[in-house]
Amino acid sequence: MEYSFSDRVSNLKPSAIREIFKYAADPEVVSLSAGNPSPDAFPAKEIAEISARVLSKNPISVLQYSVSEGYAPLRQTISEYMQKEHSTGKDFDEVLITTGAQQIMDLCSKALVNEGDVVICEAPSFIGSLNTFRSYNARLVGVEVEPDGMSIEGLENALKANPNAKLIYTIPNFQNPSGVTMSHEKRKKVYELAKKYGVLILEDNPYGDLRYSGESVGNIKSLDEDGIVIYAGSFSKVISPGMRVAYCICPKPIFQKLVVCKQGNDVHTNIWSQYVCNEFITKYDFNAHLARLRELYSKKAAYCMSLLDEYCAPAITYNKIDGGLFIWCELTESISMPEFCKRAIENKVCVVPGNAFLTDENEKCQSFRINFSTPTDEQLEKGIKILGRLANNYKK
Amino acid sequence: MEYSFSDRVSNLKPSAIREIFKYAADPEVVSLSAGNPSPDAFPAKEIAEISARVLSKNPISVLQYSVSEGYAPLRQTISEYMQKEHSTGKDFDEVLITTGAQQIMDLCSKALVNEGDVVICEAPSFIGSLNTFRSYNARLVGVEVEPDGMSIEGLENALKANPNAKLIYTIPNFQNPSGVTMSHEKRKKVYELAKKYGVLILEDNPYGDLRYSGESVGNIKSLDEDGIVIYAGSFSKVISPGMRVAYCICPKPIFQKLVVCKQGNDVHTNIWSQYVCNEFITKYDFNAHLARLRELYSKKAAYCMSLLDEYCAPAITYNKIDGGLFIWCELTESISMPEFCKRAIENKVCVVPGNAFLTDENEKCQSFRINFSTPTDEQLEKGIKILGRLANNYKK
Repeated sequence: MEYSFSDRVSNLKPSAIREIFKYAADPEVVSLSAGNPSPDAFPAKEIAEISARVLSKNPISVLQYSVSEGYAPLRQTISEYMQKEHSTGKDFDEVLITTGAQQIMDLCSKALVNEGDVVICEAPSFIGSLNTFRSYNARLVGVEVEPDGMSIEGLENALKANPNAKLIYTIPNFQNPSGVTMSHEKRKKVYELAKKYGVLILEDNPYGDLRYSGESVGNIKSLDEDGIVIYAGSFSKVISPGMRVAYCICPKPIFQKLVVCKQGNDVHTNIWSQYVCNEFITKYDFNAHLARLRELYSKKAAYCMSLLDEYCAPAITYNKIDGGLFIWCELTESISMPEFCKRAIENKVCVVPGNAFLTDENEKCQSFRINFSTPTDEQLEKGIKILGRLANNYKK
Repeated sequence: MEYSFSDRVSNLKPSAIREIFKYAADPEVVSLSAGNPSPDAFPAKEIAEISARVLSKNPISVLQYSVSEGYAPLRQTISEYMQKEHSTGKDFDEVLITTGAQQIMDLCSKALVNEGDVVICEAPSFIGSLNTFRSYNARLVGVEVEPDGMSIEGLENALKANPNAKLIYTIPNFQNPSGVTMSHEKRKKVYELAKKYGVLILEDNPYGDLRYSGESVGNIKSLDEDGIVIYAGSFSKVISPGMRVAYCICPKPIFQKLVVCKQGNDVHTNIWSQYVCNEFITKYDFNAHLARLRELYSKKAAYCMSLLDEYCAPAITYNKIDGGLFIWCELTESISMPEFCKRAIENKVCVVPGNAFLTDENEKCQSFRINFSTPTDEQLEKGIKILGRLANNYKK
């Protein structure tokens, strides 16, 4: 039987990262390609405690069907926390609980983007989101990421050239994969341009709580007086990704449409995990937990950068980071990036080739992404030594 | 701000059932409108046991990111169980774990149906699935449900008239909402027609394990020699709907495309709940649990039908059922169904108006759906007495 797939997915490929996982499954391979939280980052004891409690106190509520909007106490908790801690969310906004932040990209694409409409993305950007936009036959237009965030000139050009642009997709903090944080000034300019051109901003902020150094910059959503920003937050990096709980803060009319789309998508998010997140935030010291994560990752990030300094210069340079889970490395001109990544795999180190993150994968790219949260310190040292040796002794 | 939504969702309305939930939230209201498992149906103690065990033994595996295909041991368990117990799944098939069966409808629509393509549905059919197809701008073509399943003549006419038909969507067992089970003969004919016209069958079987009387009829998927049937199974009605775990058994090339779509949809299904389902099936007596559920619901179904006989004839007739959770009731010609449902709500009883389940909601309809699994026996008696009184004393 020859199957005929829809136009929107016939060219859709499995995520390059997930393909690389196949190599990474080999225990001899050092994987610097994942984006998983460190095994030391999970509040496993607390989750087990909460789980036992809710399954004994409210077994039916935790196991029965629930509402598409999300568990009401968790929506309330998030609403209050985000307003108090991040001035994020106004009276015209609502909180929707989703099955990971990936689902926010899916629901927003479905509700807001016709086939052929444009989604403006940072280039490079998170491959998972790009693939979701592609799966709705959106056309991706990339805007260059500069050291202080997306190019404002590039954004305005993209908006002018694409009157059918529906979304500006940005990861303003410790961007995946570039590690870049958008300056406050640029956030204001992006907001003004979105308003001027009548395009919504989709602000994806999975790493915002993982800042190790420097001053934090307010969310774009905190500037939102006009109801033009959709904010995507997630517990994947700060509680547990396996639970698949994230939240979308957006204006009521959009919220209502996303709820209808979510009904048709998965009815509602796993309700056990919604209870767990709510109890963890309200009954434990969530901010102390975040501080512990920052300390853990700050050490790993500093160690990873010291290894890059020691073993990889001058053939590999990288962006110093203030937070997040990724470091974006660049190979000197004389090295072919795809060939280098291939040789790295042959030498049992996995990294993600940078072109995977581009709106056009065929564009020339000298970069690759490494992650420092998942490997042990020993694996980091072993892997980065190999990368440095391969790059600094590279022969065509 | 005026928001402009995509064409595919601008006419999408919240599910009528979920809207009725607003009335049903009033504790004085008897809700016969839900489709929830009975509170007595959950293996809550076993789930709490398993949960404590896996969170203590494998906390990181249960909380970390996992693979889009689903937890491998659960996929294996389902594959073996469905082959052994239901001759369902061949060597050319794979098992994909999804976030509820609703997600199977979403992924299949995305992967297989272009905007404007036709999905052939039973009329009436499950509103949640119809809305998912609509959310991809599919065109729905309804085929009448007869007492032994969808009209074969109607199906062939629909296939002839719609060369762009991509899916035949059917709930062959205890269909929601009609309660009808498709005969073995019709299953074979549906299969042959699908093959003849090159259209895939999407077989949705959430209630198959809940047969109270009569002989079980084999799944359409068990006839599949050609790789043309996509089977949707679910743990929502037999373990817990709040966990959102379902499974799709389909040919490998379709599986591979659905996996890519799932990556962009929610990355993977909550992994805690996948562990729980796997341990419950493999380490407890799953078949004994199913037998207990059948006994529980069989009693409730019989009680509900006895109440309908006693209080509702002759103005309300209904289809006797052999399984499932719903009874499809029909009002005598002289009663306006929408007006009747409105009066029922005013009298504190919620039912679902039958037109909610039609591909064209404006079509004339004399039916409404009631559910007997969620209400207590006292609520059932109270609610059905009121329905009978309203119908048998109906004045325009």
